[in-house]
Amino acid sequence: MPIIVQKFGGTSVANAEKIRRAASRAVAAFKKGNQVVVVASARGKQTDELIHDALEVNPNPPKREMDMLLSTGEQQTVSLFAMACWTAGEKAISFTGSQISMVTDDAHTKARIQSIGTERIKKKLSEGYIVIVAGFQGVDGEGDITTLGRGGSDTSAVALAAALGANLCEVYTDVDGIYTADPRKFPKAVKMDQISYDEILELASLGAGVMHGRSIEFGKKYNVTIHVRSSLNDNPGTLITHEVPKMEGILVSGATIQKELAKFSMIGVDNKPGNAAKIFSHLAKARVSVNDIIQTQVSPEKANISFTIHKSDLDSARAAIEDIREQVHCQNVFVQEDVAEVSIVGVGMRSQYGVADRMFQALADAQINIDSITTSEIRISCLVALEQGDTALTAVCQAFELDKPASKRS
Amino acid sequence: MPIIVQKFGGTSVANAEKIRRAASRAVAAFKKGNQVVVVASARGKQTDELIHDALEVNPNPPKREMDMLLSTGEQQTVSLFAMACWTAGEKAISFTGSQISMVTDDAHTKARIQSIGTERIKKKLSEGYIVIVAGFQGVDGEGDITTLGRGGSDTSAVALAAALGANLCEVYTDVDGIYTADPRKFPKAVKMDQISYDEILELASLGAGVMHGRSIEFGKKYNVTIHVRSSLNDNPGTLITHEVPKMEGILVSGATIQKELAKFSMIGVDNKPGNAAKIFSHLAKARVSVNDIIQTQVSPEKANISFTIHKSDLDSARAAIEDIREQVHCQNVFVQEDVAEVSIVGVGMRSQYGVADRMFQALADAQINIDSITTSEIRISCLVALEQGDTALTAVCQAFELDKPASKRS
Repeated sequence: MPIIVQKFGGTSVANAEKIRRAASRAVAAFKKGNQVVVVASARGKQTDELIHDALEVNPNPPKREMDMLLSTGEQQTVSLFAMACWTAGEKAISFTGSQISMVTDDAHTKARIQSIGTERIKKKLSEGYIVIVAGFQGVDGEGDITTLGRGGSDTSAVALAAALGANLCEVYTDVDGIYTADPRKFPKAVKMDQISYDEILELASLGAGVMHGRSIEFGKKYNVTIHVRSSLNDNPGTLITHEVPKMEGILVSGATIQKELAKFSMIGVDNKPGNAAKIFSHLAKARVSVNDIIQTQVSPEKANISFTIHKSDLDSARAAIEDIREQVHCQNVFVQEDVAEVSIVGVGMRSQYGVADRMFQALADAQINIDSITTSEIRISCLVALEQGDTALTAVCQAFELDKPASKRS
Repeated sequence: MPIIVQKFGGTSVANAEKIRRAASRAVAAFKKGNQVVVVASARGKQTDELIHDALEVNPNPPKREMDMLLSTGEQQTVSLFAMACWTAGEKAISFTGSQISMVTDDAHTKARIQSIGTERIKKKLSEGYIVIVAGFQGVDGEGDITTLGRGGSDTSAVALAAALGANLCEVYTDVDGIYTADPRKFPKAVKMDQISYDEILELASLGAGVMHGRSIEFGKKYNVTIHVRSSLNDNPGTLITHEVPKMEGILVSGATIQKELAKFSMIGVDNKPGNAAKIFSHLAKARVSVNDIIQTQVSPEKANISFTIHKSDLDSARAAIEDIREQVHCQNVFVQEDVAEVSIVGVGMRSQYGVADRMFQALADAQINIDSITTSEIRISCLVALEQGDTALTAVCQAFELDKPASKRS
């Protein structure tokens, strides 16, 4: 019997009515002859409320206790979800991450999954139960509750689908699917029918925010097709899968903008082997995650190293760089807080002429100066002034016709 | 190092300020050189809110899922409590019932404790942590979360104190201690300094409602002194302990009234061995818990059997009796729903003259008719008409001078 994993985010289970509606989807899939595993997030704004409660008693709450606290949100949802399945006439049973041995490391508030027990779930599925699993949470080797970080329920769902050998993971959310660009920023953006793991990975890490990046990595690694769709209607959403065949000329799948960035420029670093490693391992130790890195040689002895980070890491990054700069003989450090990164993403763009220059020309036509450029196999990103970010995104979207379905682009 | 268990009820941890205040008590006890284990209930009205949430999705929610849901209330409190201890400068760690192996049977919503693991708690205590344990909850052999029923946090606390070999279990609540009668019903009631397990057991089962009956049984069995005291001040409360020496003449410790009762009278039951057993095992099977039983012989062949039950069990009891009455040849069944039971409790009252008649005289003087009388070693109860219940309680309290401290009674 095929196994389907359905993941419902917080907005899809925000109140009793929505939980009943979500449960009816699980029941419908069950009645079609599937074994159904549901992964649910905390209801609505509950995680935020619990964080607020924590900060009221401790402005800097220990992370182990935060995980203990926050994991209750999902636990409440799954028990209510199971009750709603019973109301709809089907047997259902809920589990915490701990109860199904969703084993993680002990990095509280951002734990990583190490293994998943499937025995108990499979037993209950074979007994005709719909199984409801609390997303976002796991348990470490000590038996302590861990959480996977914001958006971790996506990761729970895809990882569970992989562990159970489910071929499909449906992710129900409050949007219709994945768009060529954020419709709030480029209102003419259109929904994509399909996108590859690699493309969505670039989009997610760049802030498109539809799916948690780690969940996509799991999907890619274990070949789980992810169907991102609306919990409000039955329209097909966007399938995230391995590279999809594309018609010639359709190279750019989507565009995105990331505004919560700061750029560090380290001027005149000694151009010696190991200096870059020193800098970035120091940043890693300070738990600063670095986006893009650019290094250029300015003389045989000196190089400039610049990198972007998320603004929330600004203080940690400043301290870490202050700490390390003398060791690498850095002459000067500049920090720009008013930058935005506009990116286009598309499998195969590298092997085609004319993609990069089309982007740069679009920005030039819109009178936008490019601070720096980085590229990957499937992505081109330009750093621009923050106040020009939205204009830049629109210019790029129009240049690549992201307001049209892929099949109708020139 | 002495171990103290402190239990905080829902009103004592209802909000951030109260949690901080409760945590400061735990920290104070720790700084005095004790190892401190805290047992906490869900915040304020949270359990009621969760029950409301459940009923919104399922009018008859499965009990396993109810336990999964309700246990989150305590889990939230303990993590917040631990955070508050850190704020106050001490190391603290919270545990669910499952994490400390508070193993119960699988009778969801009213599970009974089978064993408690102390290893993890003792390890953390020896490392200098204040340990915070979620009350009210346990885990069954399958790893499913169970709850101990309303008031079960008291049971968790005393059972933990017993398992840890703690000599003292402090129960913080919103009253100053245990009174000679319910001050809302007899405003002149005074606080008792001490009371024996047996006396409080009779008071609790009769509805005084200060402590959960099962917690007292644990205390008695494992010799844990329980100190019931206010979370709002530092006044000594009431010590519940083994039989306490009393000055001569002080026989009645307290009085109580139970109004949520119904009385069944089964008239003309065949007076054969085994018939009473049949009736009460049938009621037990229907999960009706029976208070007092009176059997009187009316002829060599026939007996009348009457008993009282809690009104919430009325429908189950009616059905069970309807089911069994022909088997025992019962001629008639009467049910009275408008009764109240007034009781006095005191160790040693049986061995003294003048206690029972003083009670009956007080009721007679107040023009109150006694429907029936039952007694135990340390209790005398009179069933009276519901509308005369409060008058009866006041009359009895005055007759035994329960408005004066024990040492000042005549």
